[in-house]
This record gives sequence, structure tokens and C-alpha cells, in this order.
Amino acid sequence: MSLLWPGAERAGDLFSESAFLSAMVRVEEAWLAALVSSGIAPSEAGTQLGGLVSEADVAALASGAEGGGNPVIVLVKLLRDRLNDRPDAARWLHKGLTSQDVVDTALVLCLADVLDRVEDELGAQASSLVGLAREHRSTVMPGRTLTQHAVPITFGLKAATWLSGVVDAAEALRRARAALPAQVGGAAGTLAAIVELARLRGLNDPVAVAQAAASAVATALGLASRSPWHTSRSPLVAAADALVGAADGWGSLASDVAALTRPEIGELAEPAGEGRGGSSTMPHKSNPVLSVLIRRHALAAPLLAATLHTAAASYVDERPDGAWHVEWETLQILARRSVVAASQVTELLAGLRVDGARMRATAEAAGAGLLAEQRSLAEFVSGLGGGVLTDAVSGLDGYLGAADALIDTAIARARETRKRLD
Amino acid sequence: MSLLWPGAERAGDLFSESAFLSAMVRVEEAWLAALVSSGIAPSEAGTQLGGLVSEADVAALASGAEGGGNPVIVLVKLLRDRLNDRPDAARWLHKGLTSQDVVDTALVLCLADVLDRVEDELGAQASSLVGLAREHRSTVMPGRTLTQHAVPITFGLKAATWLSGVVDAAEALRRARAALPAQVGGAAGTLAAIVELARLRGLNDPVAVAQAAASAVATALGLASRSPWHTSRSPLVAAADALVGAADGWGSLASDVAALTRPEIGELAEPAGEGRGGSSTMPHKSNPVLSVLIRRHALAAPLLAATLHTAAASYVDERPDGAWHVEWETLQILARRSVVAASQVTELLAGLRVDGARMRATAEAAGAGLLAEQRSLAEFVSGLGGGVLTDAVSGLDGYLGAADALIDTAIARARETRKRLD
Amino acid sequence: MSLLWPGAERAGDLFSESAFLSAMVRVEEAWLAALVSSGIAPSEAGTQLGGLVSEADVAALASGAEGGGNPVIVLVKLLRDRLNDRPDAARWLHKGLTSQDVVDTALVLCLADVLDRVEDELGAQASSLVGLAREHRSTVMPGRTLTQHAVPITFGLKAATWLSGVVDAAEALRRARAALPAQVGGAAGTLAAIVELARLRGLNDPVAVAQAAASAVATALGLASRSPWHTSRSPLVAAADALVGAADGWGSLASDVAALTRPEIGELAEPAGEGRGGSSTMPHKSNPVLSVLIRRHALAAPLLAATLHTAAASYVDERPDGAWHVEWETLQILARRSVVAASQVTELLAGLRVDGARMRATAEAAGAGLLAEQRSLAEFVSGLGGGVLTDAVSGLDGYLGAADALIDTAIARARETRKRLD
Amino acid sequence: MSLLWPGAERAGDLFSESAFLSAMVRVEEAWLAALVSSGIAPSEAGTQLGGLVSEADVAALASGAEGGGNPVIVLVKLLRDRLNDRPDAARWLHKGLTSQDVVDTALVLCLADVLDRVEDELGAQASSLVGLAREHRSTVMPGRTLTQHAVPITFGLKAATWLSGVVDAAEALRRARAALPAQVGGAAGTLAAIVELARLRGLNDPVAVAQAAASAVATALGLASRSPWHTSRSPLVAAADALVGAADGWGSLASDVAALTRPEIGELAEPAGEGRGGSSTMPHKSNPVLSVLIRRHALAAPLLAATLHTAAASYVDERPDGAWHVEWETLQILARRSVVAASQVTELLAGLRVDGARMRATAEAAGAGLLAEQRSLAEFVSGLGGGVLTDAVSGLDGYLGAADALIDTAIARARETRKRLD
Repeated sequence: MSLLWPGAERAGDLFSESAFLSAMVRVEEAWLAALVSSGIAPSEAGTQLGGLVSEADVAALASGAEGGGNPVIVLVKLLRDRLNDRPDAARWLHKGLTSQDVVDTALVLCLADVLDRVEDELGAQASSLVGLAREHRSTVMPGRTLTQHAVPITFGLKAATWLSGVVDAAEALRRARAALPAQVGGAAGTLAAIVELARLRGLNDPVAVAQAAASAVATALGLASRSPWHTSRSPLVAAADALVGAADGWGSLASDVAALTRPEIGELAEPAGEGRGGSSTMPHKSNPVLSVLIRRHALAAPLLAATLHTAAASYVDERPDGAWHVEWETLQILARRSVVAASQVTELLAGLRVDGARMRATAEAAGAGLLAEQRSLAEFVSGLGGGVLTDAVSGLDGYLGAADALIDTAIARARETRKRLD
Repeated sequence: MSLLWPGAERAGDLFSESAFLSAMVRVEEAWLAALVSSGIAPSEAGTQLGGLVSEADVAALASGAEGGGNPVIVLVKLLRDRLNDRPDAARWLHKGLTSQDVVDTALVLCLADVLDRVEDELGAQASSLVGLAREHRSTVMPGRTLTQHAVPITFGLKAATWLSGVVDAAEALRRARAALPAQVGGAAGTLAAIVELARLRGLNDPVAVAQAAASAVATALGLASRSPWHTSRSPLVAAADALVGAADGWGSLASDVAALTRPEIGELAEPAGEGRGGSSTMPHKSNPVLSVLIRRHALAAPLLAATLHTAAASYVDERPDGAWHVEWETLQILARRSVVAASQVTELLAGLRVDGARMRATAEAAGAGLLAEQRSLAEFVSGLGGGVLTDAVSGLDGYLGAADALIDTAIARARETRKRLD
Repeated sequence: MSLLWPGAERAGDLFSESAFLSAMVRVEEAWLAALVSSGIAPSEAGTQLGGLVSEADVAALASGAEGGGNPVIVLVKLLRDRLNDRPDAARWLHKGLTSQDVVDTALVLCLADVLDRVEDELGAQASSLVGLAREHRSTVMPGRTLTQHAVPITFGLKAATWLSGVVDAAEALRRARAALPAQVGGAAGTLAAIVELARLRGLNDPVAVAQAAASAVATALGLASRSPWHTSRSPLVAAADALVGAADGWGSLASDVAALTRPEIGELAEPAGEGRGGSSTMPHKSNPVLSVLIRRHALAAPLLAATLHTAAASYVDERPDGAWHVEWETLQILARRSVVAASQVTELLAGLRVDGARMRATAEAAGAGLLAEQRSLAEFVSGLGGGVLTDAVSGLDGYLGAADALIDTAIARARETRKRLD
Repeated sequence: MSLLWPGAERAGDLFSESAFLSAMVRVEEAWLAALVSSGIAPSEAGTQLGGLVSEADVAALASGAEGGGNPVIVLVKLLRDRLNDRPDAARWLHKGLTSQDVVDTALVLCLADVLDRVEDELGAQASSLVGLAREHRSTVMPGRTLTQHAVPITFGLKAATWLSGVVDAAEALRRARAALPAQVGGAAGTLAAIVELARLRGLNDPVAVAQAAASAVATALGLASRSPWHTSRSPLVAAADALVGAADGWGSLASDVAALTRPEIGELAEPAGEGRGGSSTMPHKSNPVLSVLIRRHALAAPLLAATLHTAAASYVDERPDGAWHVEWETLQILARRSVVAASQVTELLAGLRVDGARMRATAEAAGAGLLAEQRSLAEFVSGLGGGVLTDAVSGLDGYLGAADALIDTAIARARETRKRLD
């Protein structure tokens, strides 16, 4: 909810402060379970932590986070206090982990939920676009380059091109999602504390025990296993890049919608809705608000990902002095805004109004220009002499090239991807 | 308050959601007053709006903001509802304004409070730095370039260099603050509605009346007067650039503190504090948390300002299709984080612990290297022959060049600026 | 000249590789002269260096630059070799300076030439815009917000708004230009080597001598004097911010031109020119190439300045480990592209073709919508009852508000600025 | 070669102006061949174009590029002129293509060469890192977090962590490389001109002929086939993201090297080299120049990719008004700098000097702190009572956790990737 980012409520609780708090608690809980199941901690230490903290704790934890530079120290203290009737659990809680393990895995959990949601939205968008591409296979409109009329296209082909951006985004997102790893490394990424605990508890092959415990956490949380990545941030930035890749495609299609909604062009209109697109003073206005808000996100997203890359490139030592800390809220902002934009794009495409008659009328009126290339080709071939075919110019519908075949290709690819992703 | 940006609570209510809401209400109130005082609206229309909305309204307004693309439409409706016992005020409220007038001026009001606060912090920082520069005028330490020992400097000179960054920032900030303008332009920046109301109400010279009303709003809100700047965003981006300029200086000094706090160097330490700098697992740790959190801001701030520039460069028409909307939260984030970092820098500098003995010991140990340049100069001049003076090498204190004079210059400039700004 | 940045040749030799080489040589020359005039070096050491190196040396120097991390070491060696008949000059060359002094001052010299040129272009642009604002004072067109028709404006007012962006840019640029300082600090910013040389040469008050020599260099090069700013980069980033500020304004006006050049709108057209705006295959095309190329710069410029800010915020020690080195080419790219865009904007505005009849026709056709606000005001005032004036709606020319007065204000401000800047 | 980006010559001719020119010519040549082999053009039209233009033409073509907004129009004209003895080739040259086809495919060709080269460098880096990881498996050093000592690690583990960044980069790069597509779409991405030529020449199934010709070009150039991606820029930005991903890893390892090269730490040193790391005035200096120059790239690269994303998100129409044009030089800069940095990293790692004795000495001296966590674990387990093992603290070598196993994992993954990529 934000006065300053209208539509923010579409992100709901995804990657909210309280979702992040819950995610941290889930990490501690999964770790406690792994300690128990690996035999490092006694079975009495195992417990559910889910109900111990709530949204009401966010403020206190947040304001306690500055002292240690991250919220884990105060969270662990709070959880231990609230486990006062479960002394074994309290004692074993967080043993072997470091703050970065908890924060990173919680970030990844929040991010995973966001990627899942965005992927769903991309799927819905692909469906709408397949529909638009099919329905407007024969809807001729002017192709425009550098703002000027070029040659005719169909709106179906434009939808197919948007579709290809959406499918690219879905593939990249799925790949990034599948690679999202849990983080379990201990203070400096050696798993030393965990190995030590296993050793002190008399377990055989403490290294194997520690690695198995780390894997168990990943499995329990539905994440990939990976060696500690405390200072090697590829998985996070790949997820961010994938979200920006989605924003690129959305920004481009929203730019198209905004342009084609100009009253002088009038080829597209946003879905009508109660109170949607009105003005505070001009009763007649119908603003393409969704496109405007989508474009807003696309303008900002690349620089949020760039912040993450700049941070990743500045990682020094076994945990850096600032580069880690800048990632958290940056990811949150990028992720939540991605959900908002994804949802807006889905709504935009589901209700997009296409004025095929106006498209054709404009194209017909611009016919001489739009078919100038075709005419010049006819003259060219005619000038070659010989028995070649040199029809007169054909009319707009006769100069659409492979548009139809390209639509089919885009649809087939969308289906293929959908199948692979499902 | 944020789990993901520890220290966020230092920004308090500055540029918060509710501060922004209050600011919008202040704009509407000032405008209503201007309508009355200019004779456009009857005196019965004048009223205070301050108590009509509160933080409790933020959520509803925020979720209503998407329909029109900004929160003003729903805010005006809400205010009119709540003015049901003041029909004249309800009627005249917002008359002549456009949403952008209200949002932009409210952004500027919030920004002004932030700049004022940051300027205060910069003043406090300058005081600390003047103190450090004086106290450590003779504290010799190794000058370092490209990470390697170069020639000796004093910590006083380093403090003076930090001071010069702080003073540069204060000057730029003051200039940007003074230029922050109210926005009053009406639907497309012509003031047409206001002029029309003045005309319909039978006032003489309606254009002059409208311009006077716009000026009155600026004056009432403590802002500069300027022709409508709906699509010419220099004042906003200049304020953002000034905040980033401050972050540059803070980032640089925090990078120095972080480097010099390394245990192998140990020349500086952050102020000790209850629970400050601890670790979730390593009892001995004392992390330079303030520097780390300051560096975090410095890594992200330039890209927030770049977002604003990219937006400004994309302004089209009399109000653009996304470039305006991206500014709001971007400014909010940049501004609030600036306050947080400013406050952290003030605390860092006020309590910075300088180990002059260690500095000197390291410099002495590195003496041969640090004085290699001096030695080569002595050989050079000696090689010239003639009656010139070619003393043996002098020791570290004898090769500090103009360090003292440079400290004096920096302090004098800080004082001068302080005087000019006060 | 670049295949990949068409129009690059407009930057000519400004901030080219060879301009930068010449600038480094000018710095060394000015420093040699200061050494002599201050009495540190003998008069035989003074010499002109201008003819000693040329563009032909760039390649060798460039490839030798990596070893030391900057081109100064190899340049000094080359100059000394070529001064083999002037042994005193060869011997004293560069004495007391550090590489950063030479590189930074040379960057500043190149930047100064660029700012001067851009300022000239902004002046020419302001003249064109004053003309357009005056000429089209009564040229009514639709005001557009969020791509939709809002209320009428005049093209004169639009030109006046562009003008205000240009004037803002000129003021910021002038301020940044005036503050551009020479860099003279020696190895770690203490001026130690220079002070030492003065001392060894038996001069009185060696610190004062050194500071005077530093000032003399600044004066000789037409730059401001400032204490060493090796690690406090405000002057450089302020210049970069000013160039980006200019790009913001240009990007916005070019976006307007591109939009209004769409054939469905057709209100503006770029200046016609031999071979300008053609297509490789479509004989009828007339692309708004200048606007396109200007927008290109505006899209990239903010991130170049952000790179400089990120670098400035990463400065550590007395010379940092990468943050300095990234500035050089980044500044060069930003500066040269700024000249290209500046020149393109000047040409665009000088020949901009305004179709006032089309503007009016579109506005008339959209009259009901464009005057909806006016109508609602009339109804509002009429509803108030009493003796107020409630004319029927006036037609487009009657609903232009303070447009005329705003044009006058913008023109007056442009004149005022011009006077102040001249 | 650049005075302002030392080391630039390492990029050689990769993605140089003349490489780009050659690439454009290769595209036209491949297209001409496809026209002939598909039966659209007569066999007399086929010819080699390779020798027709040379580096000497770059300047004239570059300065002619502004008129049409891209260099293709003037290039086609030049090629036709030079084919004056091959009238069929001259006539058929470029028939069916649009400028964007030629520019985009040439960009991709240059990019492909760069990715291939960077991949080779990553391979060499991986080899060095495998060697370092193995050799220093037992080289104990302090693990550092937030600049402070944490727990012991080995340098072998640090090398393995760097290795994992390098392998991540290699995988992303390979994926992006394999996806790099040729661009063949004609004026508005419909292939209309090609289909029309096939039709006019009386060929069966002109659409299939056109698509086959497009595929033939891709195959001939060693690129992927893809439907026209004129406005859907995923393949380009994915390649840019991959290069930035590589820069992230390099920046991080170079930051480590720079920090550990500080004289107070002295654990690493860059390879010595003739004239490498010297200073213009301080004879004793040995600067970590390679790390510095690598960090420089890592600071700038994210914002170059962000420029491409911002552009991609602004694509409008069938070819946009600036967003396309900004990509070209941005890609060139990013790509060439990537090669430079890649080569520098390879050199750095091949000759990196590791002072294992110093690492151990520092770790031993810091032993109490580095083993504080281990001690607290022993106390913890001891406090549990029962028959558990609670040895005394073990010494640094006994608290390395799974470091060895993690090194093995990293090496195995590097081998696996290498096998898959070969």
C-alpha cells in the first residue's frame, strides 16, 4: 500500500516486511529440524516456530536491527525468549548458522514466491496474447519505424512480438527460480560451526553430516542446494536480471499501448473500469493508466538490478562492508514492483480494446506510403526484364510478408514453453 | 522502520506516507486560502483542513490511487466528504488545480523538510570534522594510494578532506533547497482554470489574479515561486543530485573508516555502543556497522538519482505517461535513506576513535618507503650542484608539506559556509 | 567519428584522445613555468612543450599506460627524451607533481572546453526558442496529458517551457564551469614534494611558495584554485550533473518533437536536409533523425553520471583503487556525446517546422473535450448563483489562461540569464 | 588503444569500428548468397564483398551515417559503387533487408566474437583457480567479515569461491552466446520485401522461401535462427547481462586482491612485471594495477547493461525513436572493456603471488579471536552434560569445517562445466 506507488497493494504480502520475518523464522525452523534429524541436536530441540512471532513484532525487530547491522541477532534473541518453555529448542536455535545464512535464505524464499507469482502472470499474459494474435491475424495496421509509417503489419503480428518478449521472460524466470539456493555456510562459509557441533556430539564423518544438514534445509524449503555463496551472488542477480527482463518486455508493450492510445491514433484503448483513468478536473479524460504505471516500473527496474550488480562486484572478504546490506531492500523493491506491474500487464492484456477498423482506415489512408516499398520492388523486378512476374501493387493485405507464419511460430513457441514449464 | 534497511527509523516521519498525505492536505489548504484571499472564492470557503485526514486514511487512499493513477482524485473526494458541514469549502476545494500541482508541491514540501534536516546533520558533521582536523593536526599516518603506502599525511588532513566534501554537499543542498518551487499550473500548465474562475467571478485582470494566487501559495508554504514546471524537472533533479552529492562524500569517508578499521591497520574505530557491531555467533566481533550502513546508501543513491534523470529526459506532452509517476517513490526512498545515512554519519564522526599511536607506529615502520620520494628529491637537488640546501631526509614530521595550511583553509571555508548558510 | 554513434564527428577534437594528450602537456608546461616563476627551478628550465608530442604519439603512450595504470609515467618519460637538448627542462619537468595532478587537470581542461561549447549551443538554442515562443504565441494546439487531450495550450508556451529547461541547464553549466579547479597536490595531496623542493632550494616560506605555484598553474590554465581534491570529487561530478541536466531538457524536447512528428499528429517536422531522415528501403520515409539521436543521448547520459557518483562514493585512501580510473573515459564519453547532442538540438530548433494550421485543426476537432473543463467551471460558477459572470464557453483562444504571461516570463528570464552569463 | 582506458589495446580488433564494418559487409554478403541460393536472385548476383571496403572507409561512412541515422544507407551506396563491374550484385545487394537487419546482425557478430574470447579467458581463469585452490588447500588465513576477523578459512577455499563466480559466468555466457540470433525481418519485421521478391520472381511458396533465406543467413554466419526480434531485445540484453555477470565475479576477486595486497595485510601480491605498478614520483611503489583496472570495469559495467535494459523497455512501434540507436556504442564499450578486463584477470590469476606464511602468521596472531566461535561451541556442548565429546579448542587447522570438501565440489563443477562447454 503506498500513496507514492499506486497499485502497490497488488503485491499483497509477497516479500512484505512480515513475509520476510516469516521467512527468516522458516529458515531457523528448518535448520533446527535439520540439526535434530542429523543427530546433532537432541529430538527435544525440534519444534515449530511459526506461531512465535507475528507482524506485531516487525517494528521492534526492525528498530533493533541496526545495532548488529542486520535483523537476525535480535530475532534470535526474541525467539529464544519466546521458547522459554522449550529450553532445548531455545538452546539449539540458530546453532551453526550465521546471520547471512538466515537473511540470504529468507531473501531467496521471498524471491521464490515472487518469481512463482510473476510466472503465473506471464502465463496468463501469454494466453491473452495468443488470443490477440489469433484474433487479429488479419487486422491490418500501419507498421511504424522511427515514429513514421513504414509498411503494413497486422495487429496479430504485434501481439505475437509482445508474446515473444513474454515467453523470453518466462523462460529466464523459470531458470532463475530453479537455481535459487538456500544459504548455509556459517560465519565464513566453511560450515565450521556445524562440522564442529557434529564432531563434539561424537557423530561419524562430521563434514558429511554438516553437508547433509545443509542439503536438508534446502530440500525442506524447496530450494536448490549449493555450496555457500556468501560472496558469489550470481543466483540473486540472475533472479533480478530475470525480473528486469520481464520489465523490458512489459515496458515495450506498454509503450506501444500508450502510443497507440493517443487520440490522433486511437487504435488501442485500455480496458474500461470503474474510476479508471479519470482526471481530477477534466471530466472527459480517459487516461491509459495501466500502461503509464507499467512504464513507470520499466523505467526504474534496470537501475535496481544495476545496484545489485554494482554490489556483487564490490564483494570483498568473506562478507563485505556494505555491498551485502544494500541488496535486501533493493531486492524487495524490485520484487514487489514486479508483481504489481505483472498484475497490471495481465489486466491490461485481458481487456485490451483493439479498434481494427481504425487501424485499417489509417493504413488505407496511408496506403501510398505504406506500399512504396512494394512499388519500388515491382519496378525493380520489372526493370530486370525476362519472364518474371511483376504484378501491380497488391493492396495492404497483399504485402504482409510472412506475418501469418510468424504468428504461428510465436504461438507454437509459447505453447512449447508452457508445456516445458508446467 | 524496516527489517530490510536497518536504521530506517532514523528518518522518523520525514517524507513518510503520512507526511506526504499531510503535505497534500497543506497544499489544498493553502490553495483554498489563496482562492479566498484573491477574491475568487468567497470568504466562507476558507477553512483549515489539517484535522480532516490522518494516518488512518493512508491505506484507503493508497488503494484508491491506482484508478486515476495518482492519489489526488480520491483525496479530494474524501476531503469534500469530510467537509460536509462546510459546503463552500467543499465546493471550492481544489478548484483550479490539477493533480500534478498537488502531488508535485507535496513532494517538494516533503523534500524541503528532508533537505533541512540533512543540512542540519551536515552542520553537525562539519563541527565534528573541524574538531578532528584540529586535534589531529600533528597525528602522522601513512598516506596511501592504490592501497599502497605513498608519503606521510596527518589524520587532521584526512579529516579536513572529508570536511571539504561535507561543505561541498552543504552548499549544493542549500542552493537546491532555496530553489524548491511550489507547483501551480492547472491541467496543462496554463493556469487556465484559475484565470477562468477569476474571470467568471468578475475580477479585474484575471491573469494577474491567477499569478498572484499561485505566488501566494508558494509564499504560504515557504517555497520559491516559479512558472509551472510540470514538464521541466530541474528543481527536483537538482535536489536529488544534491542528496547524491552528500552521499558521495559520506560514502568516501565511510570507505576510509571501514578500511582503516581493518584489524591489520587498526587506525580508526567506530564509536562503541550497546549492542553495536556484534555478531550472531562470534562473541569477539566489533564490526564497523555505521560505516557499512553508510556505504550501503552510497552504493544505491546514484542510481536513484539516475532514475529521476532518465525520467526527466523522457517527459513528453504536458504531462508524461510514466516518467512523472516513477519520480514519487524514487524521491521518497532517496530522501528517507539520505536522512538515515546523514544521521549515521553524524554519529560516526561524533564518536570516531582515532588511534594516533598506531598511525604513527605504522608510519614509522614504513618510514623508508614513505620518505623515498623525499630522499629522491634530496638526491635530485644535490645533483644540481651549486649552493643549494640539501639536508638529509627529515623524518615523517618534516615531510608533511602544506598539510597544516590546507587544514586551516578547510576550516576557514567551513566557517565561511556556515556563516553564509545561517 | 563513429559508425556506432552517428553524428560523433560533431564533437570534433573536443576531449579527443589527442586533445587530452595536449591538455596533459599543457599542464606539465604550466607547472614547469610555475616552478621557474616561483624560483624553485632555474629559468633555464622554462620551455614550451607544445610541439614536442603530437597525435602520432597517442598510440604508443596509450599502450604504455597500463603498466603504471595511467598515461603520465610514459608521457613524462617521452617528454624528457624529447627535451634532450634542454637538460634543465627535462630534469625539472613534472618535479613535485603526481600523476593524478596531471590527469585530473587535463580532464578538467578538456571538460572546460566542452562546457564552453555546450554553453554556446545552449545560447543558440535559447535564441531559437525565444523566436519560436514569440512567433507561436497565438498558435493554439491541444495540451496533452498522459497521451490524451487535456486543455488547449499554445505552441509558444511549449517553446517557452523548453526554453526554461535550456536556461536551467545553462545556469547549472556556468556554475559548474566556473568551479572547475586545477589539481595540484603531489603524491598524497600534501604538496610535500613541492614544499620540499622550495625548502631545498633555500626559498623563504616554502609552504607559501608551493601554494602560490599551485595557484599560478590554475590561473595560467584559466581554472579555479582549490585545495587538492584528489579524493573529493564534487567539482567533477557537478560538471557531469550539469551535462546530464542539459540532456534532460534536450531529451524532453526531442521526445515532444518525436511524438508530434507522428504522421497522425503531424504538428511538427524536423528541418529538411540533404539525405536527412531517409531509409535504406522505403523511399517515402522522412524520419525525425535528429530527435531520435538526441533521445539516444538522453537515455544513456544519466547512467554515465551515475557511474561517476558511484566512483566518487567509493573513494578510499589518498587515491583509490579503481574509482579514479573509471572516471576518465566515462567523462570523455559523456562530454563528447553532450557536444554532439547539443549541436543536434541547436540544428533541430533552428529549423523546426511548425504546422500551426494542423495544430489548430486538431484542437478545433477536439474542442468539446479540450473545453470540457471550462464548461464545467461555467456550470460550477453558475450554480453558485448571485451576480457573478458566467459566460458561455469561449472557444479555444479564450481558454489559454496565463499562457501569454508565462511566455513573457520565460523570455525575460532567458534574457536575464544571458546577460548574467555574458 | 586509449589514453583514458589503459589496457584498451588488449581488446585488439574485437568489436572495433573496422570489425563492425566488416561484420556489416559479411551480413550483406551472406544475404546476397541467400538470395541467390534461394533462387530469388540470379546466380550472377552472387559475389564476395570482403575486399570491397576497408578500415580506410570507416571515417567517410561514419560521417555519412548521421543523415539516415545509421551507417547502412551510406554503406550500401558505397558497396554498390564499388560493384560497378558486377551490376547484378550491385542491383541485388541489400534487396529485402532493412538497415536494422544489417546493424543488428553485425552487432551480434561482433558480440559473438567477444563472447567467444571472454569464454576462452574464463576457461584459462578457471584453470588457474583450480590450481590455486588445490595448492592452497591447507593455507590457513583469517576469514574476514565486515572487515573484521571472523573464523579461519584457507586460501584454497577463497580461490574455490572465486572459481565458482567464474564458472557461473562461463555458463551464462555460453547460454547467451548460443542464443545470439541473426536478424532478418525487413522494414517492419514481416519479411514482406523478401516474400514479395520471391513472389515477383515466380517462386513457389514465397513465404517459405523467405524464411529459408533468413535461416540460411543465420547458418552461414554461425548464428541462431529466430523470428525477427526488431523490438524484442532479449537476446542482446541477455548477452550484456552475461558480460556484467562476469564483471561481477572479476570485480569481487579484484577487490579481494586489492584488499589483501595492502601492506599491512600483505597476503597477496600481483604478478611482477616490467614497469608494472610503478609511480611517477615514488620509486618504492608497487601498485596492484591489474586489480585496480579490473575494478574500474566492474564499477562501470552494470550501468552499461542498465542502459540497454532501459532502452529495451522503451521500444515502441516497429523500430523505436532512440532506444535502438543507444544500444550500438553501449554494447561496443561494454564488450570491448569486457575483453580487456577478462585478459587482465587471466594475467592476474596466472601470476598471483600468495604469501602463505604471512597468512598463517596473521591468523595465528589473531587466533584467540578466530577461534572464539569454536570455544563458545565447546562450552555450549560441554554445558549440555552427558557423554558427549568436548575437546579443547583445536587450533586453526582444526576449525576449517568443510573447506576441503567445498574445494573439491568447486573443482568438480568447474570440470563438469568445462566438459559441457567444450
